[in-house]
Amino acid sequence: MSTATPLPAYTSYQHVLVSSPGPFVAHVEINRPHKLNAFSQEVWLEFGRVFKQLSDDPDVRAVVLSGAGDRAFTAGLDVQAAAGDGILGESGGDVAKKAKALRSHIEEFQDSIGAMEKCDKPVICVLHGISIGLAIDIACCADIRICASNTRFAVKEVDIGLAADIGTLARLPKLVGSTSWVKDICLTARDFSAQEALSVGFVSQVHEGKEAAVHAGVALATTLADKSPVAVQGTKELLNYGRDNSVAESLRYTRVWNAAAVQGKDFSQALMSGLKKTKPRFEKL
Amino acid sequence: MSTATPLPAYTSYQHVLVSSPGPFVAHVEINRPHKLNAFSQEVWLEFGRVFKQLSDDPDVRAVVLSGAGDRAFTAGLDVQAAAGDGILGESGGDVAKKAKALRSHIEEFQDSIGAMEKCDKPVICVLHGISIGLAIDIACCADIRICASNTRFAVKEVDIGLAADIGTLARLPKLVGSTSWVKDICLTARDFSAQEALSVGFVSQVHEGKEAAVHAGVALATTLADKSPVAVQGTKELLNYGRDNSVAESLRYTRVWNAAAVQGKDFSQALMSGLKKTKPRFEKL
Amino acid sequence: MSTATPLPAYTSYQHVLVSSPGPFVAHVEINRPHKLNAFSQEVWLEFGRVFKQLSDDPDVRAVVLSGAGDRAFTAGLDVQAAAGDGILGESGGDVAKKAKALRSHIEEFQDSIGAMEKCDKPVICVLHGISIGLAIDIACCADIRICASNTRFAVKEVDIGLAADIGTLARLPKLVGSTSWVKDICLTARDFSAQEALSVGFVSQVHEGKEAAVHAGVALATTLADKSPVAVQGTKELLNYGRDNSVAESLRYTRVWNAAAVQGKDFSQALMSGLKKTKPRFEKL
Amino acid sequence: MSTATPLPAYTSYQHVLVSSPGPFVAHVEINRPHKLNAFSQEVWLEFGRVFKQLSDDPDVRAVVLSGAGDRAFTAGLDVQAAAGDGILGESGGDVAKKAKALRSHIEEFQDSIGAMEKCDKPVICVLHGISIGLAIDIACCADIRICASNTRFAVKEVDIGLAADIGTLARLPKLVGSTSWVKDICLTARDFSAQEALSVGFVSQVHEGKEAAVHAGVALATTLADKSPVAVQGTKELLNYGRDNSVAESLRYTRVWNAAAVQGKDFSQALMSGLKKTKPRFEKL
Amino acid sequence: MSTATPLPAYTSYQHVLVSSPGPFVAHVEINRPHKLNAFSQEVWLEFGRVFKQLSDDPDVRAVVLSGAGDRAFTAGLDVQAAAGDGILGESGGDVAKKAKALRSHIEEFQDSIGAMEKCDKPVICVLHGISIGLAIDIACCADIRICASNTRFAVKEVDIGLAADIGTLARLPKLVGSTSWVKDICLTARDFSAQEALSVGFVSQVHEGKEAAVHAGVALATTLADKSPVAVQGTKELLNYGRDNSVAESLRYTRVWNAAAVQGKDFSQALMSGLKKTKPRFEKL
Amino acid sequence: MSTATPLPAYTSYQHVLVSSPGPFVAHVEINRPHKLNAFSQEVWLEFGRVFKQLSDDPDVRAVVLSGAGDRAFTAGLDVQAAAGDGILGESGGDVAKKAKALRSHIEEFQDSIGAMEKCDKPVICVLHGISIGLAIDIACCADIRICASNTRFAVKEVDIGLAADIGTLARLPKLVGSTSWVKDICLTARDFSAQEALSVGFVSQVHEGKEAAVHAGVALATTLADKSPVAVQGTKELLNYGRDNSVAESLRYTRVWNAAAVQGKDFSQALMSGLKKTKPRFEKL
Repeated sequence: MSTATPLPAYTSYQHVLVSSPGPFVAHVEINRPHKLNAFSQEVWLEFGRVFKQLSDDPDVRAVVLSGAGDRAFTAGLDVQAAAGDGILGESGGDVAKKAKALRSHIEEFQDSIGAMEKCDKPVICVLHGISIGLAIDIACCADIRICASNTRFAVKEVDIGLAADIGTLARLPKLVGSTSWVKDICLTARDFSAQEALSVGFVSQVHEGKEAAVHAGVALATTLADKSPVAVQGTKELLNYGRDNSVAESLRYTRVWNAAAVQGKDFSQALMSGLKKTKPRFEKL
Repeated sequence: MSTATPLPAYTSYQHVLVSSPGPFVAHVEINRPHKLNAFSQEVWLEFGRVFKQLSDDPDVRAVVLSGAGDRAFTAGLDVQAAAGDGILGESGGDVAKKAKALRSHIEEFQDSIGAMEKCDKPVICVLHGISIGLAIDIACCADIRICASNTRFAVKEVDIGLAADIGTLARLPKLVGSTSWVKDICLTARDFSAQEALSVGFVSQVHEGKEAAVHAGVALATTLADKSPVAVQGTKELLNYGRDNSVAESLRYTRVWNAAAVQGKDFSQALMSGLKKTKPRFEKL
Repeated sequence: MSTATPLPAYTSYQHVLVSSPGPFVAHVEINRPHKLNAFSQEVWLEFGRVFKQLSDDPDVRAVVLSGAGDRAFTAGLDVQAAAGDGILGESGGDVAKKAKALRSHIEEFQDSIGAMEKCDKPVICVLHGISIGLAIDIACCADIRICASNTRFAVKEVDIGLAADIGTLARLPKLVGSTSWVKDICLTARDFSAQEALSVGFVSQVHEGKEAAVHAGVALATTLADKSPVAVQGTKELLNYGRDNSVAESLRYTRVWNAAAVQGKDFSQALMSGLKKTKPRFEKL
Repeated sequence: MSTATPLPAYTSYQHVLVSSPGPFVAHVEINRPHKLNAFSQEVWLEFGRVFKQLSDDPDVRAVVLSGAGDRAFTAGLDVQAAAGDGILGESGGDVAKKAKALRSHIEEFQDSIGAMEKCDKPVICVLHGISIGLAIDIACCADIRICASNTRFAVKEVDIGLAADIGTLARLPKLVGSTSWVKDICLTARDFSAQEALSVGFVSQVHEGKEAAVHAGVALATTLADKSPVAVQGTKELLNYGRDNSVAESLRYTRVWNAAAVQGKDFSQALMSGLKKTKPRFEKL
Repeated sequence: MSTATPLPAYTSYQHVLVSSPGPFVAHVEINRPHKLNAFSQEVWLEFGRVFKQLSDDPDVRAVVLSGAGDRAFTAGLDVQAAAGDGILGESGGDVAKKAKALRSHIEEFQDSIGAMEKCDKPVICVLHGISIGLAIDIACCADIRICASNTRFAVKEVDIGLAADIGTLARLPKLVGSTSWVKDICLTARDFSAQEALSVGFVSQVHEGKEAAVHAGVALATTLADKSPVAVQGTKELLNYGRDNSVAESLRYTRVWNAAAVQGKDFSQALMSGLKKTKPRFEKL
Repeated sequence: MSTATPLPAYTSYQHVLVSSPGPFVAHVEINRPHKLNAFSQEVWLEFGRVFKQLSDDPDVRAVVLSGAGDRAFTAGLDVQAAAGDGILGESGGDVAKKAKALRSHIEEFQDSIGAMEKCDKPVICVLHGISIGLAIDIACCADIRICASNTRFAVKEVDIGLAADIGTLARLPKLVGSTSWVKDICLTARDFSAQEALSVGFVSQVHEGKEAAVHAGVALATTLADKSPVAVQGTKELLNYGRDNSVAESLRYTRVWNAAAVQGKDFSQALMSGLKKTKPRFEKL
């Protein structure tokens, strides 16, 4: 269990702890350390809800995500719980009917994890210890990835007879440079290290141990929280838009986006502060 | 000429040798070593047919591709043969008529090479020695690229007055991280080394000499052939789909794909083996 | 001020100097060194016009871009001039009306900088010294990026309260391999060095000092200018097309493109020269 | 107020009445007749929830939508309520902050209305009386449109100084054949009649008066509810997919969809009944 | 059985008869009248091959398709033969394995029928008598649809427990103006008449009886065969391209296409004939 | 020659006359009646420039386009002038070089005509008399099409040995409901009448004679000019965006667009006027 003090507005969550290590920064911890932070359906529904709330919370400008405890960011799906939910393993019955249930189930799961990508505020994912299966799906939804040197990564799904379906296969190839590497780790399900993750660009920082990594994540979040929320959130939106659209379409969307954004006070504020060499203060968005 | 024993079902090919270095693994060798494995039309039509057959063959779960002989993976298009086919060099005549013939010719060529990408089974391409021009088009259709330390790579087409049209320009920028590098090698047609290919992520392993590289390719293929074919082939399909589609579209396609796939026996088999710590056996797909 | 001799056809420009360091090579210098080569509206309109002219000029086959003077490639937008243009900082008035003016203004700015990407000839961008804000938007439109070891890079827009809108957010993630890195530098607006730019693949060469970098850029341009213009320009077009389209669409476009291109004389010329081991000469395109 | 008996599972709704005029058929009525069935935020949130519930309800296979009362299907947005919500009319304040609130507000509104399109079961929209503004946005989300001869249609938004933003402009041009007509009615905001709606293909049936139209809608829904749910819901999904995708992509998605669907019992059931000339019975999906 | 004289180059087909009712015109007849021209796998494979051959045959410039005999264009899938092929009805076995077989089977079927759309020459489909199920999939691949007044149309698949998967759902909504009508006929599987098909724009001519309709189809084909093949085939290609692409992309593709096409002799020939008021003759393409 | 009084700001045009038949309405006439308003390069460059100017002119809110004189809207390309420009008919020379010139030439032509579609203000195209070839390309760029009963339409390009390349093939199928009809008229190049154009939805009004048609066009333009420019121009933009994008993408773009637009005064103005039943006045945009 994490020992951080929960933010008052986020005390109702059971499996996710939200604290605030600094102004406008929220730290989300997956909080089932005795289960290696594995995800049952209850956990992922909460995960989706917390990021929806953070997205709308004007007191939050940047988010750090980590796992509670020393052993794991997350060991992925809680397979036993999943079996109990009756989705996995259940065989027989009408194939078309089961297909409908599965599509619906996978969509709910994808939407819950994807809520982190949709969150208006930038999310820094700090990986550490066991970080396999769903851990990669989650990390792929973050904006910036940092890890501890002891992180053990794996896209594990092939080893349970399954093509990963919560987002890794859709997002990972767009996050790193080498498709040959992506296919290698996705098809073999082999472990890879923090150093390998850094060298292929999956993470952009490696720190000695979880504590140092979380510290670095919080420091980076603090930097982002200090800047214009209009600029930071607009930058996240436009980068995410660009991933899925042509350059011409992105430029068009950008024009329409900024036509409102630059009429906000943040822009004139920041501009003026820049000329006067003072530190700007930005209002809540 | 390769001295491997051809697989019985694949003995009719003239320019391509298919052997089986292990259970469920096929090794395809481009087999014109006296011509540096250069491709005439006859060769590329065979190349397309062999990968179509491998795609449908339930006894094959992973494929390794290399060139026969010590000197070359392939030196690319067999220019003399191409001239003889009357496609290249032939000038004059009606421009529109010739344009139609050329479109049709290029499409057949693209389809033949692209059959490797469409092959349901993962393909590991082992490059070695001379690997220029068409060699890059071919390598770009593989899932994982490995090479020998003596490989001499080049996107050579500009030097014969031509923009590469069999796939390199469409696929390469999506396989590696640096567009500046891609444009450099495509516009200058300069050679690049195994080490450079590794550092930009074009290949994911370099081995000392062809033999070691082929050996590593076979070992990797053996690993893949040992896993659930449903999971492995689904992972290949979803990664390839993701390359050409937005994340939202990929997630939708994934849901529909897995709604059938996870109802197969591989999934429950693998899951149960995981819990029981036994080695699963997967039926032919 | 640059001391190069301007090309006769390009003497009318005020803020951009165009010289020719070798046959078929043009060297464009942003020429406001006393303002750190900052861009006012007048400058970017000229910038757009000069690349339109270079695109159509049969005497130019490759272009090098750098900044004049020792201190900066460009310090980006000339904020004071922009304020004078009445676009920035001006608040109040009808929001919808101002939004229309802003969209139109941003589009003109995007089109001017984007003219470099649309230029039929390959452009090698040589960055040096201060290269922040708009410098990155510009560099992203080039084909190949080279820099001096003293280059100071930053995607600076967030620090003036703004999501970058002239192209960096649309293009940069498609130019380099690590999205985690892209989001880091775009959200933090921090400086990064030549070495970091090289390691993530943003630039493909680093040289000791501006002079050496420009020299390398000119050498590379000379290499390109020596090759078949049909092949070089077709390669640029097809690579740019591929960035924004699926592989299947790219292959289709490629067939149609080459159906005309390979009927040109460059192809038979280059082919024959290859067989005869002579150096081909290519006519103006 | 409608006098139909509400379905037990749907009695908690305040502004929407759901009854069942026949086996597996649900009839949804917008139920604020004293306000001409105008939509406040509370209404549209309910509207979204009811269609989400219908989508998941195995006892429903087809849906009819109409307005309660004789005067209107709906007069559109409840402008007074909207003003009270503080979204409309509120001027001043920070432009960027207000833009963020507006984007979020419009998205919630779009999602609520769009829930009808996402509903797995086919929806037949029966328009009658006043059917303006939001009425068209809603109708565009239905699968089949029927209307009473007294229907008064208008895309009214331009007359309140606004481009319609809940879906009409995105969907209408894809529902009918003449863009010249679409732009005419969207730009002029003029009324059009049931007959005009029929002749351009916006509705596919016109009936004398509301009662006859609702009756026809229910009859059509009963026909659909009698058929294989797997076939009907798959047909809706594939037609909607096709609207937004190329033919090649649709064919690919179709293959993957039907690979599970035709393994269901509905298919063998229907096939056998066809051969035996008996009436098939389909299980709940 | 049709009594037309088969074209020499097409005598090897078993189920498809190809004759030539005029210069450069081919008439294809589906030739299983005793089975209401129903399609077994053997028939659709032949269908695909014949259109591939017609596409490449320089002696053919326009194609007419009809059914042999008086009763049917085609009654669609030969359900009994399909059952015998072991694809349909076969239940049980591994779901994932069967899904793979089904995807592959549907793809082969789609490709065979789609060969008519891909055929370079325009195809005029003449529908008559029973024209249900697969008949609509086929008709949707034609360029121009004509029918006899006695035609009985139906998108019949829902009635055999299936979403149509050979192309109707992907293409039909892009061929006619009213989506409300499309969903009506696809979801209800009801019959519709020649007159209804005309009024919604599915067919563009109705003639009294099969003979008159075929006659009109041949006359139209003769008109097309008389025109420049470069212009006619280019027009077909660009219209088909446009269906699946944005206007901007279509304009770009058009420029590249015509850059070769207008250099052909057809263009100068036709232009000159226009000025001289003579009848142009076009060479084989 | 038209006898209307030219608008002062538009007197410099040679081949295009711009007058103002009412407040905020511009009437553009193609003004070469002695040449049946045929287009030379000079004419289409002017055509592009005039619509660019109208787009930016705050005194114009709606545009009517017609031809000067009684005989023709336009007879299309001025073939003799085109021959003189050396683009058409010129054969021989290097194919690749000519292809480049042709691509560039077609692009300039497409851009000039397309400027009408890009014009921010709605354009009503009034066709009359001879309206063939380029007339259709132009009409397809308008928002609303009206015609005189004597109009003679034809997509004439096939008869001069050419696939239409200025926009008809890209836009027409997206403007009307029946693809069978579109392919008929594009492949046969046959004439079609005002009545036929109306029945397929290409035009939305037919009037007896040119004068009545122009009068109706002006009346419609006057209606549009009376409404909120923010609403009208936003509606045009969003409808055009929707044509080329999926519904989900359109809804997203719409949210961002309206987030600025509804903060303008037009919206509160129109809303208040609606409640007070007064006539709103809108400021220049």
